[in-house]
Amino acid sequence: MNIDMIRAAAQRLKGHARVTPLLNSPFIDEIAGRRVWIKPECLQHTGSFKFRGGWSALSALDPEVRARGVIGYSSGNHAQGVAHAATLHGVPSVIVMPSDAPTLKIANTKALGAEVVLYDRAGEDRDAIGARIAEERGLTLIRPYDEPQVIAGQGTTGLEIAEQAAAHGVREADVLVCCGGGGLTSGIALALEADAPGLRARPVEPEGFNDVARSLRSGQIERNSRTSGNICDAIISPQPGDITFPIIHRLCGPGLVVSEDDALRAMAQAFLRLKLVAEPGGAVALAAAMCRQDQIEGEDVIVTISGGNVDPDIFARSLQTLS
Amino acid sequence: MNIDMIRAAAQRLKGHARVTPLLNSPFIDEIAGRRVWIKPECLQHTGSFKFRGGWSALSALDPEVRARGVIGYSSGNHAQGVAHAATLHGVPSVIVMPSDAPTLKIANTKALGAEVVLYDRAGEDRDAIGARIAEERGLTLIRPYDEPQVIAGQGTTGLEIAEQAAAHGVREADVLVCCGGGGLTSGIALALEADAPGLRARPVEPEGFNDVARSLRSGQIERNSRTSGNICDAIISPQPGDITFPIIHRLCGPGLVVSEDDALRAMAQAFLRLKLVAEPGGAVALAAAMCRQDQIEGEDVIVTISGGNVDPDIFARSLQTLS
Repeated sequence: MNIDMIRAAAQRLKGHARVTPLLNSPFIDEIAGRRVWIKPECLQHTGSFKFRGGWSALSALDPEVRARGVIGYSSGNHAQGVAHAATLHGVPSVIVMPSDAPTLKIANTKALGAEVVLYDRAGEDRDAIGARIAEERGLTLIRPYDEPQVIAGQGTTGLEIAEQAAAHGVREADVLVCCGGGGLTSGIALALEADAPGLRARPVEPEGFNDVARSLRSGQIERNSRTSGNICDAIISPQPGDITFPIIHRLCGPGLVVSEDDALRAMAQAFLRLKLVAEPGGAVALAAAMCRQDQIEGEDVIVTISGGNVDPDIFARSLQTLS
Repeated sequence: MNIDMIRAAAQRLKGHARVTPLLNSPFIDEIAGRRVWIKPECLQHTGSFKFRGGWSALSALDPEVRARGVIGYSSGNHAQGVAHAATLHGVPSVIVMPSDAPTLKIANTKALGAEVVLYDRAGEDRDAIGARIAEERGLTLIRPYDEPQVIAGQGTTGLEIAEQAAAHGVREADVLVCCGGGGLTSGIALALEADAPGLRARPVEPEGFNDVARSLRSGQIERNSRTSGNICDAIISPQPGDITFPIIHRLCGPGLVVSEDDALRAMAQAFLRLKLVAEPGGAVALAAAMCRQDQIEGEDVIVTISGGNVDPDIFARSLQTLS
């Protein structure tokens, strides 16, 4: 896993993934007490950065292997990213989803061209089901984060941040990254190491699901005691990856943690001041900029909004924090 | 009023206004029955295209004149655009607003650096108040649309559309523009005439406030019978401008009209599929693409989302159309 793979992914993504802008608002600067630069990956295809990794992985495959199709396990953004990237490549995709996943997410994944295979979270073994289908049909598994070409794709976000920050004269800043398994965080960290050494990536997680922050403190992989029961579901995973964690450990600053209410308030500010739809997990970095000022260094801070796939009722809850 | 003024404005806006992206979604294409390309000016500074016109007008002034400051009449997006552009130029701005304007808009305009002068809509003469203040302090009036340098600024949106459409291989399409007094529509029309002659601007208005559509049909300026009582308030004005209408009449295709419910449903799709916050008036062009398919020509259509300054309660109403 290295910067050359990220640069190669950037070449393959050119004209296919969106170059998202770098936004700001004087109102958010005021709340945060410093200049806040926002990288809105909610504007990426399929509404999250996951399309970058999906496209990167698909486009890196040998054409004959790719033609047989790909398979992924996901109840959320990775599913949509892989499904859309596969369809645009003209190859089949199978997504294995829990049968209790939100109806809308299942419908979206199908609409983007995937065959959705449902499994019973309680009684069935997801990995066994996926492995059987993959073997029968010769499909290639695309893991959500612990996969070099996926990390390379997510890392293209970091190349863009480096270039856009420099264009605004920002040479030194913390870069707060919404962090689940660490694919986006590790990819951005590698890109910044190469192209913007004054920028330092830092993972941001929801309270109670801070496996990466704890792993950074202890120096070894720590697990979450549970993996559900938080509105920031999109960025909750059991533990940092075997590939992503060593990169995060080597390059990233201390982790930050925010509450569900902090995330809802950040979503409301993204609505009010940036005209962006952020999902709870996608808003934790902005929340940290707003609520953890004393844990951030420097006059500028850069935050990712990693996705915007949120149900209307949860979005409506965020709007209520404004009244 | 000509293309050279728009190109000059583009030079002055460079590095100050945002180049907004051109977005799309397979889900919206499906609803609209053709490819839909979205130009989200809600992502512009201050949440609407009005910042372009404000910056263009401010930056075109003689420095000594500019230093004395500017004045504008507005209860909405023009106010914020002018206030922010003036503050960034380091000069004072006065915005004359009705005392019954939404508290949030008054607060925002002040926070962006303007001095807000309130007047009583029923008993006081806005123009007389503004003229007196302007004369006393030597302020320059910046009109919201019937002002060449404002039209030039809004027209830079059209230069970007021409370039971005070409990059996607779109050479022929209707360009649907949310239309009030016609500053954005006439500016875009002039830019397209020069840089993308296969693209044709068309104004979109709310039902009951279709002065531009009727003016296009009759060939002369027609008035609205009322100028309030619709959630698309941001794009309601008494009549097309004396400068904007001849341009619109010469260059634009027939006007389109949508209902308030159409606008709310388009806002919901912008939320769900584009992760954008659109205000009702800013969503009418997307609404027309979704609901007026038989009145649109070609395989592609381009729509502006002109602004995103919407109150949370109205946004919540749009979300209810999804359930």
